[in-house]
Amino acid sequence: MAQTPKRPRDYGIQFGVLPTGPLNAITDVAGVRVGQVTLKQGQNIRTGVTAILPHNGNQFQQKSPAAIYIGNGFGKLAGYSQVEELGTLETPIILTNTLSVPTASDALIDYTLTMKDNENVRSVNSVVGETNDGYLNDIRGRHITRQHVLDAIRQAKTGAVEEGNVGAGTGTICFGFKGGIGTSSRKLPASLGGYTVGALVQTNFGGELKIAGVPIGVALGKFEFKENLDGSCMMVVLTDAPLDARNLKRLAKRAFMGLARTGGIASNGSGDYVIAVSTAYTIPHTTKNTVDEMKVLRNDNVSPLFMAAIEATEEAIVNSLFAAQTLMGDQNHTVEQLPVEKVVELLKKAGQAR
Amino acid sequence: MAQTPKRPRDYGIQFGVLPTGPLNAITDVAGVRVGQVTLKQGQNIRTGVTAILPHNGNQFQQKSPAAIYIGNGFGKLAGYSQVEELGTLETPIILTNTLSVPTASDALIDYTLTMKDNENVRSVNSVVGETNDGYLNDIRGRHITRQHVLDAIRQAKTGAVEEGNVGAGTGTICFGFKGGIGTSSRKLPASLGGYTVGALVQTNFGGELKIAGVPIGVALGKFEFKENLDGSCMMVVLTDAPLDARNLKRLAKRAFMGLARTGGIASNGSGDYVIAVSTAYTIPHTTKNTVDEMKVLRNDNVSPLFMAAIEATEEAIVNSLFAAQTLMGDQNHTVEQLPVEKVVELLKKAGQAR
Amino acid sequence: MAQTPKRPRDYGIQFGVLPTGPLNAITDVAGVRVGQVTLKQGQNIRTGVTAILPHNGNQFQQKSPAAIYIGNGFGKLAGYSQVEELGTLETPIILTNTLSVPTASDALIDYTLTMKDNENVRSVNSVVGETNDGYLNDIRGRHITRQHVLDAIRQAKTGAVEEGNVGAGTGTICFGFKGGIGTSSRKLPASLGGYTVGALVQTNFGGELKIAGVPIGVALGKFEFKENLDGSCMMVVLTDAPLDARNLKRLAKRAFMGLARTGGIASNGSGDYVIAVSTAYTIPHTTKNTVDEMKVLRNDNVSPLFMAAIEATEEAIVNSLFAAQTLMGDQNHTVEQLPVEKVVELLKKAGQAR
Amino acid sequence: MAQTPKRPRDYGIQFGVLPTGPLNAITDVAGVRVGQVTLKQGQNIRTGVTAILPHNGNQFQQKSPAAIYIGNGFGKLAGYSQVEELGTLETPIILTNTLSVPTASDALIDYTLTMKDNENVRSVNSVVGETNDGYLNDIRGRHITRQHVLDAIRQAKTGAVEEGNVGAGTGTICFGFKGGIGTSSRKLPASLGGYTVGALVQTNFGGELKIAGVPIGVALGKFEFKENLDGSCMMVVLTDAPLDARNLKRLAKRAFMGLARTGGIASNGSGDYVIAVSTAYTIPHTTKNTVDEMKVLRNDNVSPLFMAAIEATEEAIVNSLFAAQTLMGDQNHTVEQLPVEKVVELLKKAGQAR
Repeated sequence: MAQTPKRPRDYGIQFGVLPTGPLNAITDVAGVRVGQVTLKQGQNIRTGVTAILPHNGNQFQQKSPAAIYIGNGFGKLAGYSQVEELGTLETPIILTNTLSVPTASDALIDYTLTMKDNENVRSVNSVVGETNDGYLNDIRGRHITRQHVLDAIRQAKTGAVEEGNVGAGTGTICFGFKGGIGTSSRKLPASLGGYTVGALVQTNFGGELKIAGVPIGVALGKFEFKENLDGSCMMVVLTDAPLDARNLKRLAKRAFMGLARTGGIASNGSGDYVIAVSTAYTIPHTTKNTVDEMKVLRNDNVSPLFMAAIEATEEAIVNSLFAAQTLMGDQNHTVEQLPVEKVVELLKKAGQAR
Repeated sequence: MAQTPKRPRDYGIQFGVLPTGPLNAITDVAGVRVGQVTLKQGQNIRTGVTAILPHNGNQFQQKSPAAIYIGNGFGKLAGYSQVEELGTLETPIILTNTLSVPTASDALIDYTLTMKDNENVRSVNSVVGETNDGYLNDIRGRHITRQHVLDAIRQAKTGAVEEGNVGAGTGTICFGFKGGIGTSSRKLPASLGGYTVGALVQTNFGGELKIAGVPIGVALGKFEFKENLDGSCMMVVLTDAPLDARNLKRLAKRAFMGLARTGGIASNGSGDYVIAVSTAYTIPHTTKNTVDEMKVLRNDNVSPLFMAAIEATEEAIVNSLFAAQTLMGDQNHTVEQLPVEKVVELLKKAGQAR
Repeated sequence: MAQTPKRPRDYGIQFGVLPTGPLNAITDVAGVRVGQVTLKQGQNIRTGVTAILPHNGNQFQQKSPAAIYIGNGFGKLAGYSQVEELGTLETPIILTNTLSVPTASDALIDYTLTMKDNENVRSVNSVVGETNDGYLNDIRGRHITRQHVLDAIRQAKTGAVEEGNVGAGTGTICFGFKGGIGTSSRKLPASLGGYTVGALVQTNFGGELKIAGVPIGVALGKFEFKENLDGSCMMVVLTDAPLDARNLKRLAKRAFMGLARTGGIASNGSGDYVIAVSTAYTIPHTTKNTVDEMKVLRNDNVSPLFMAAIEATEEAIVNSLFAAQTLMGDQNHTVEQLPVEKVVELLKKAGQAR
Repeated sequence: MAQTPKRPRDYGIQFGVLPTGPLNAITDVAGVRVGQVTLKQGQNIRTGVTAILPHNGNQFQQKSPAAIYIGNGFGKLAGYSQVEELGTLETPIILTNTLSVPTASDALIDYTLTMKDNENVRSVNSVVGETNDGYLNDIRGRHITRQHVLDAIRQAKTGAVEEGNVGAGTGTICFGFKGGIGTSSRKLPASLGGYTVGALVQTNFGGELKIAGVPIGVALGKFEFKENLDGSCMMVVLTDAPLDARNLKRLAKRAFMGLARTGGIASNGSGDYVIAVSTAYTIPHTTKNTVDEMKVLRNDNVSPLFMAAIEATEEAIVNSLFAAQTLMGDQNHTVEQLPVEKVVELLKKAGQAR
């Protein structure tokens, strides 16, 4: 396991006011599975794939209500317009590097066409997000293959999610430190519905780093305006709350607010996208019914979920920084990890860690 | 002057890394004027009008490039679609209470129709934002008149801007404390273009208050999930940077990120809107030319402005809280002001004030 | 009755392939009511109000699923962003002239605040559309009063809808001829769901007029590029099909396609808006439930409704032209009505009328 | 040449009122090049690639102002969000079949990375549109290779554009007849700016076919509601008018209105996208300047371009039908071509052909 043994919570660091789920991971949403393939080969290959599967079945035949919010659209995410139009997700979600989006899309088509019951499928809306790991990774070499993507999907499992230099986060950079994959969750109290919201992020962006509100970037001398600003953040938010596509889009927007809390600024060159999915129900690809019967959460009851999405995203981003480790890659570029001990010291002084 | 003598900066509180303009106000953008009319009458009337004028001329004849970003659309802002379609602002911006938007729109029509050179104008796109002051103010009484709006416009002036319980912020509530009008600015260093970005906000929303990242709401016991969440925030961002409507919309979105930094969650019932305007050039209503010649800032150079908008908005919101004073209003409802001394104490402990 | 005795259908003119409802009017959607107030006073006042009520109850307490599509946003429609955010309509829909939108909004607030059960309402999202009748009407005089709007609502009734120079269409101009109010409907066969779609339009726009596809504008010498192009079209589409807000927005977009069929071009100066509402269910303002249970039509089944919206809108526009009558108004401006006999003659030659 | 010798104009059929350019093709916009690769192999392969290049240089280094309008988003177009965010196009435009979008995206990355001056490029926003040719073509076989795409780009040339069963239109179906590639243009009179607007379409959709307004689908018994409705239309609009991204988006929307005039309904399963590009100026990828100096057409002057886009798109769609030829393909599926003689006969009767 490349995972840092301790997460921010282990240092008593709090992000907001809502309790986490048992794993503090996107997989706290029942049925959600994550699979990751990490490529660290030779001097130059530092990249990977992260797959998120909302449910255990045939995603094409049992589509999930979904929405995508674009924080800043300097990115190559595949699948936006169909999710926006129809309100559904019909493939697993894949995250990878910028120039491997087509490969991952192709792999999702392979995956879907060859699945049982999909023999007559002729149209597949692959959903693939990306960030650019071209500083540590030989991104122009396009080393991700369809098989890597299929492997990530096949290895997807429930339970704890590895964070840091793993999967699509293998070669990413965040606030000038090594970034990566991070995850977190919130579980609402029963009085607010008892729903779970989980977030998973691929952090590769800049700004003025704040951890639990404390201006760490400035304190560590890791902020100068001209550097560290560009880059992107992919955010995936899942929930078991019965939201329709309209309210999922609103939920997705709140994840972007979580990014804002960490000091991200969604710079010109950022590709900041949030994919939000509900696992509360599915919409069958074919059925004899002309209507879908559904129970959807009322507008009046979504605000606690909004707060949960903000907090879980903020924490997932910081989790990625705590888990990531110093990495040397392409052209001997090296990116240092967050100096966790110093950071914790600073947070203690600010009353934000124990 | 109802203004609190000290602003957060006076306590050494920092919001981000960029320097403020000389007044730390929206009026640091050259030529921008603000006018406010405050209605505190009897037991029940606690409302007002705030007018922002981008330039000194005939706004209809010399339109300003503009954009509106909708953070959460539970609100009654007037003028959205035409600004979105044409990319221009043709009236002053008015802020007031929710049920007085039509009155303010009407006043802007009056103002425009009766202005010199506008004798043949038959179409006016009034831009009016609002939040709901219906707890402290007898909002159903609709006490704002056209004259109040015209007075706010006519009184508009450059220089310092009054904050707190004034104008459209007279009766608003923010994070459970008395909210109001707040303003702030940022001045980019010459190496980043030297541009100024100014923000003015009407704060009337909730969430988990953070000041300079410190969780004040929780510390003051002023956070319970069921309360303090709804409400709205109107944000106005002006800049002398030569942005076109597309980049102004991106800038506007960053103001919403500034709101996120204060702990706002854009709850279901929020009307969170940002109106962004450039003063760098104007677009004439009529001209013999078929093309507009313009110099617009390149995408590559907007990121510092994004950071400036985030920081100025965050600070403007907190400024509104520091300036607002305890107020009793309709039905003897009372809302306490932020206990500034306690807050400063908490910030000192966190290393965020001196 | 100012209504022309014969409508296009009476001449055997067809618009598309789907059958109309019994009245060929928006009121074929069960429960829908329309009320109109017409102001023709003196030489200069030629304007009015048209109100559309989706159901018989308290619209604020029983909100209707709704969406607004903006074809071209050079217009002053009130209420867009909240409908977009929440997916519901909470007032009757009012159409009037451009400069009377604030008055109509105010009237809707009056109407809502004073209605039984609304004693505690402090926020009302008025939905008001408009076009500019400033050629025939002294629009700068703003002759519409709140009472006119309340009268239109109070007079609203089911049954046949008056067309032509009536209500909000009193002073409008369409393709260089006298425009006005028009309405039409489609009733799907049972095999396609049996649903009804009704359209009502306020026609005030230009382009190259085509009636049932025949280029009438050119044939009548009523097309020169520099004239007749600006102006606007308000379109209201109601249906008893159980659509949610997402699919209502898609339906609304198809009404705009109906406008395209008539030769409209959505010129720069057009305010072309479509408000779409379903009467199949309502969403209570308050309830003990945290979820709404609903049956919504599947994406797979919306296409026939799309076609119905296109056809009904196209026909409603032409109906407005057939019904409108030559009118003299402000500054002795006169706009001639469509020469119906000539038009029918041309359509006969083209095989499109009998 | 597979091209039908006669185009609709040759029969005296008119679409609107504006004159065409000399070729009546997208290549009437100076400098625009089109390249097509057609795959007709064995019984089952009926597909291809169409490439459109706005200018002769390095598209990545000299980006074109651009916008994408989504009519109905049931499609897999690549590149949307970055064009929307930045307002520029940085690759040629590729059209192909649905399941080959990733291959085409990959090819555009190859093309861009290997081009002179692009040695350090690590991020490429491929723009690829598609429709689904899965009835005549073995689409699941994914027979398009990167080389096919590169070949289409390399073969791109100015001059006449082949229409019908060619390139990305090889296997498409339109209104129940064989569809394909079509193109048309409009040249504004000098008094309206003298600009050229060109359209190229890949027609693969249904509805109730109208040609020059005449209901041909019904007359030919080629309309039943349950069939012929789904499918998609890709539309590309180029102009030498100096439009910025905002007005290009408006222009793109008008192309969708041209589709509406042909009887298309943008059914649920349609992917109807318009990519609009101006060739009037380019925006350098890198420059020492912080501002771009530009002359952009004023809002007041765009309406004639809107009409041109509507007319050119309508005509391009019909041109595709006139040029396409009966084709047998996968599983011996056969789609008949439009019976042009009968159609012309019908149009003559309606006075729309000579």
